Amino acid sequence: MISLGKFIVVEGLEGAGKTTAIATVAQQLQAYQIHDLVFTREPGGTPLAEALRTLVKDSVDNEPLTYQAELLMLYAARIQLVDNVIKPALKAGKWVIGDRHDLSTQAYQGAGRQLDSALIKMLKNSVLGSFKPDLTLYLDLSPEIGLERAKQRGKLDRIEQESLEFFDRVRTRYQQLAQQDQSIVVINAEQSLEKVTAAIQTALSDWLNG
Amino acid sequence: MISLGKFIVVEGLEGAGKTTAIATVAQQLQAYQIHDLVFTREPGGTPLAEALRTLVKDSVDNEPLTYQAELLMLYAARIQLVDNVIKPALKAGKWVIGDRHDLSTQAYQGAGRQLDSALIKMLKNSVLGSFKPDLTLYLDLSPEIGLERAKQRGKLDRIEQESLEFFDRVRTRYQQLAQQDQSIVVINAEQSLEKVTAAIQTALSDWLNG
Ligand SMILES: Nc1ncnc2c1ncn2[C@@H]1O[C@H](COP(=O)(O)OP(=O)(O)O)[C@@H](O)[C@H]1O
Ligand SMILES: Nc1ncnc2c1ncn2[C@@H]1O[C@H](COP(=O)(O)OP(=O)(O)O)[C@@H](O)[C@H]1O
Ligand SMILES: [Mg+2]
Ligand SMILES: [Mg+2]
Repeated sequence: MISLGKFIVVEGLEGAGKTTAIATVAQQLQAYQIHDLVFTREPGGTPLAEALRTLVKDSVDNEPLTYQAELLMLYAARIQLVDNVIKPALKAGKWVIGDRHDLSTQAYQGAGRQLDSALIKMLKNSVLGSFKPDLTLYLDLSPEIGLERAKQRGKLDRIEQESLEFFDRVRTRYQQLAQQDQSIVVINAEQSLEKVTAAIQTALSDWLNG
Repeated sequence: MISLGKFIVVEGLEGAGKTTAIATVAQQLQAYQIHDLVFTREPGGTPLAEALRTLVKDSVDNEPLTYQAELLMLYAARIQLVDNVIKPALKAGKWVIGDRHDLSTQAYQGAGRQLDSALIKMLKNSVLGSFKPDLTLYLDLSPEIGLERAKQRGKLDRIEQESLEFFDRVRTRYQQLAQQDQSIVVINAEQSLEKVTAAIQTALSDWLNG
């Protein structure tokens, strides 16, 4: 596929500042005269994927959701989004800004849930093949700070209620994967909003210019 | 797991007579003083799995459902059913009678959809491990006859609207898998209802007695 648009993803723990960062990225792209933007979030972003998001976020009739079912539903939602929204948008020359993508699954289901890495690898490969974001901004912060911010926002959902050990494993995996992949830029998200915004702007313009 | 109850599955194309056969099986088990029966259907059988069934059967807002997402949603529903319903029931000494189970995925997604067999194998293995039905009654008939019967019943759903070639592949795979597995009994479902019922009764009592 000749991809004309670019796929930029913002990643990080709950409360890291992803939603805030996406606004910064969008503003800066527009300053660069890139106006044709598509915003996605994962899980979600298509009618079916949003239905799956709801099923993953809030259990139905208090039925326990197995970790494996959660993983399969996340990838089912991802296929729908990639095939029906992201790839067509990129093909049409649009830029896509994603609130989470596959890195979240690697960190949350792989390290947080400690699910079978061979299964995750096969799913990723089968669903995504070589498709990946052009740029990922990973907002790094301690789970304590992130959850404190997320709590201000309202009631914590099923995943946000996990233990600190869970989120420590998630953060460590994010950091490891960022180190291995040049297309992932780590932003220190424990700084003030002004400094985080400046760091994002610098990372983005460095990438756009070179 | 020491399984006290038994898991009996009825399989076959749409209109093969599965729902009819399940009543026959249940009656005969009761004649054998086996009264503690649990009925399941796949996909479905738990609140979440039923929600997934609805999403698979009827597309949301006409969004095309990719074959891969369909496969993952079917296995997500299966994990929920096996973990939350079937295994606990068997452990409690109940007998479970299933309207479809994993064999349907092997036939429909494996042969009908022609999805990657390595992916299906890994999912099956990861979700089910060595868990399998004690007995499967496979109701074999030509797709033409099955679809004719299913049409009498009402509007065809998304899968029932597939081509005859699709269902021919599904039937052939069913037949192949039945030949390889001693726990699968083939019933000629093109016969009259009386003859099919008699064949099911014979197969079931042979199995119960030996
Ligand atoms: N650098 C920061 N310092 C302090 N508060 C922040 C910072 N970045 C975001 N916030 C606030 O933290 C909360 C969560 O931010 P949000 O962008 O919604 O995070 P996410 O989308 O990653 O969960 C919001 O109330 C936001 O205003
Ligand atoms: N052997 C048979 N001969 C003729 N009609 C049958 C036979 N078995 C079932 N039917 C009828 O065919 C229709 C489909 O049967 P059903 O048990 O609902 O199939 P399934 O559950 O496999 O889709 C029903 O109307 C049923 O009464
Ligand atoms: Mg957010
Ligand atoms: Mg039926």
